[in-house]
Amino acid sequence: MTPIDYINDNFDRIKEDYKELLAIPSISTDPAYAHDVLRAANWLAAKMREIGLMPELIAMPEGRHPVVMGTWDGAGPDAKTVLIYCHYDVQPASIEDGWHTEPFTPTEVGDRIYARGATDSKIHVMANLSAVEALLANGGCPVNIKLVFEGEEESGGETISALVDQHPERMRADICVISDGSILAPEQPSIIYGLRGIVTMELHIDGPQADLHSGHWGGAVHNPAQALAEIIAKLHNDDGSVAVPGFYDDVRALDDSEREAMRANTDWLAEEYGTLVNPPTEWGEPGYSIHERTGARPTLEINGISGGYTGAGFKTVLPSHAMAKISCRLVPDQDPEDIIRKVSGYIAQLTPPTVRSRITDLDYGRPALLLAREGSAIQAAAAAYETAWGKPVIFERAGGSVPIAYDLEKISQDMALLSFSYKGGGAHSINEHALVPMLYKGIITAITFLQAIAE
Amino acid sequence: MTPIDYINDNFDRIKEDYKELLAIPSISTDPAYAHDVLRAANWLAAKMREIGLMPELIAMPEGRHPVVMGTWDGAGPDAKTVLIYCHYDVQPASIEDGWHTEPFTPTEVGDRIYARGATDSKIHVMANLSAVEALLANGGCPVNIKLVFEGEEESGGETISALVDQHPERMRADICVISDGSILAPEQPSIIYGLRGIVTMELHIDGPQADLHSGHWGGAVHNPAQALAEIIAKLHNDDGSVAVPGFYDDVRALDDSEREAMRANTDWLAEEYGTLVNPPTEWGEPGYSIHERTGARPTLEINGISGGYTGAGFKTVLPSHAMAKISCRLVPDQDPEDIIRKVSGYIAQLTPPTVRSRITDLDYGRPALLLAREGSAIQAAAAAYETAWGKPVIFERAGGSVPIAYDLEKISQDMALLSFSYKGGGAHSINEHALVPMLYKGIITAITFLQAIAE
Repeated sequence: MTPIDYINDNFDRIKEDYKELLAIPSISTDPAYAHDVLRAANWLAAKMREIGLMPELIAMPEGRHPVVMGTWDGAGPDAKTVLIYCHYDVQPASIEDGWHTEPFTPTEVGDRIYARGATDSKIHVMANLSAVEALLANGGCPVNIKLVFEGEEESGGETISALVDQHPERMRADICVISDGSILAPEQPSIIYGLRGIVTMELHIDGPQADLHSGHWGGAVHNPAQALAEIIAKLHNDDGSVAVPGFYDDVRALDDSEREAMRANTDWLAEEYGTLVNPPTEWGEPGYSIHERTGARPTLEINGISGGYTGAGFKTVLPSHAMAKISCRLVPDQDPEDIIRKVSGYIAQLTPPTVRSRITDLDYGRPALLLAREGSAIQAAAAAYETAWGKPVIFERAGGSVPIAYDLEKISQDMALLSFSYKGGGAHSINEHALVPMLYKGIITAITFLQAIAE
Repeated sequence: MTPIDYINDNFDRIKEDYKELLAIPSISTDPAYAHDVLRAANWLAAKMREIGLMPELIAMPEGRHPVVMGTWDGAGPDAKTVLIYCHYDVQPASIEDGWHTEPFTPTEVGDRIYARGATDSKIHVMANLSAVEALLANGGCPVNIKLVFEGEEESGGETISALVDQHPERMRADICVISDGSILAPEQPSIIYGLRGIVTMELHIDGPQADLHSGHWGGAVHNPAQALAEIIAKLHNDDGSVAVPGFYDDVRALDDSEREAMRANTDWLAEEYGTLVNPPTEWGEPGYSIHERTGARPTLEINGISGGYTGAGFKTVLPSHAMAKISCRLVPDQDPEDIIRKVSGYIAQLTPPTVRSRITDLDYGRPALLLAREGSAIQAAAAAYETAWGKPVIFERAGGSVPIAYDLEKISQDMALLSFSYKGGGAHSINEHALVPMLYKGIITAITFLQAIAE
């Protein structure tokens, strides 16, 4: 039987396995779910053993969520070794956020499967596991395999960084695949060759020692929620560009051919934009297309804001404190430390003498990454997508971060991202879902990739 | 025995009664505490009956918290009738907010009693009840009494408004006393003759249909938390004045003598300001003293702000929605409807085409109030304070609202505010407390007032 025939025979069972994995709330960012993250890790290790891989749970530093690693070296010492990275942890989710179904009760409706983690990123875990299963069950795999499934992609990724740095021999590979993220649209495969970096921080504004009565003191005390808004408002210019002095200094300019290619590929984004954003009035740095704004330009975002009384009814307080969570998405060649220095310096400069500001929870994150489009991994990936989807891929610069790329780059720069999700899948949002046909095509892509890369 | 001797003999017991009342969490704004509000009402009715008043619980409209009314007409039809208003409901409180003691476990430390409601406003309930008790137990009271204790001052005050409007005969009185608020400082009695009005509203900013991944979309979508901050930042000018067009149009100017008196009395405020506000850098409308800013000038305050993810860790969302609770303090002759129209109109004008704004939870509140300093009630109050405190009062315009004043004005404009709290008492904030000597002096003031007003 060919590996693809095997998948056709086993697809219904694979789908059920996928739902079993989705039912485990492996939320890595909330310590209350640590047991569930471990439960997911054990589920994966059992599955690896079943299909012929040697599984290991690796948790270092102590107390962090384990990496699940499955190795197979049956292709022999002369064959290439391919390391395939996925992550099995998920973002927090609660039905109260506005989900139509329970986030951890996988629900199939038409060709969609709804669940937290469906698209980000258990579809990738399942597709790659199933591809390896199909190859090993039907004559073996032409390359040696290291499946590396991370359990804390959404919460720091310390374990895998430590593993790469301290045990490079365990992670040695000729080719690295990162299976995460999303392609441009369900019917349009794409390969991401650029990723934005990220830094995050909290901005706190402190005013009075305690909340004050807004009647007694309103008009004579600078309100910290107002002061926070005044500072945030100055972080962007009126045209949508970031106002932090020097923010764009180190941004690598796009060459004309790349700009042209990016602008040519904005239709997919514009269509999706129209369904997500209401009103669909465009916003952002002037002179750039949506693709450039999200892929090749840096940003400063307010991820959360809070202060004062926000419960039911009215409490006429003058709050003592207000807070905003801020992140910056970075592009080549911005340096995370430099950006944090510039943003925090500008905030200090914007802080009026009537309140105090503090920057806390600094995460220096990572710089942006740009891969060579001519590498063997990217070329094999392009061929595999074309086989599975029946049409050529589009090359894309993506807006998100894939932290692991910086670690895997140390192992091999012959690297490709293989994504089987689409952007409308609700990653980090409500009603997250995967498309069943994309799970199927993803498995075919992963099989074809492993066959093509061996040559 | 004189009424004052009676108080000296009974003060320890009165203090224990006060703590019993403070232990009842009569939070009117949260339906979960409706039973406790009723429990406090019954406690007060029992106490009224005990000291010789005829108590009634009046709850109209249905489902609201009852007014507790205690009447005594033993002074006869030719004597004046004095209506004394207090409120027995309190603001929400939780030890997690930063209290040093459980808010509903009254805790005496030195000459302080810590508890939610200690200063706002159960000290007034207790002082007036005890004054009437002392008079009735020692030869009777020279005026007829209507004690009117409201149970929803912190949450709308519908019942008492309906009572005044629909049953004016029940509320008929020659003199009205509102016992609430605070004097300038523990050793400095003051009489409030001006109160600011208030309007409240919620401002909602809606953007994408759901929270988006800030990596995928950051840079191409106007972030609602940012847009909210940008709108809020434009509601004030850089100098601290309100930027809403026409906001100050109807503000009645202070005459020179009143301005001079107000400026002369800012030391108390400045001292307190220094203990509450850190850094104690002055803020507010240029050209006005703290007393004027808080008593005679209108404001626009952000009472709360929220949006996006604000829990532990980082969730790099681009929020779909953000919200701010906004209130305006009004002065004579600003009209609440006009101010709401101006503020909401300005916000609509400030809203960029990239997001939508909504104003909800509009409360038209009430206009400001200014009482004649020459009225018999204010004159008797001034004399009573001087007896109890041993020094002359300062006349003050206060920053807060006393909604009931607008209702009681319909009964009699011969009205005075009698306050036995001080501004450092933590009203609407954490570690609320009353000063025991002020409870004592408050009772003496209330007794003396009732004796003086009879003449």
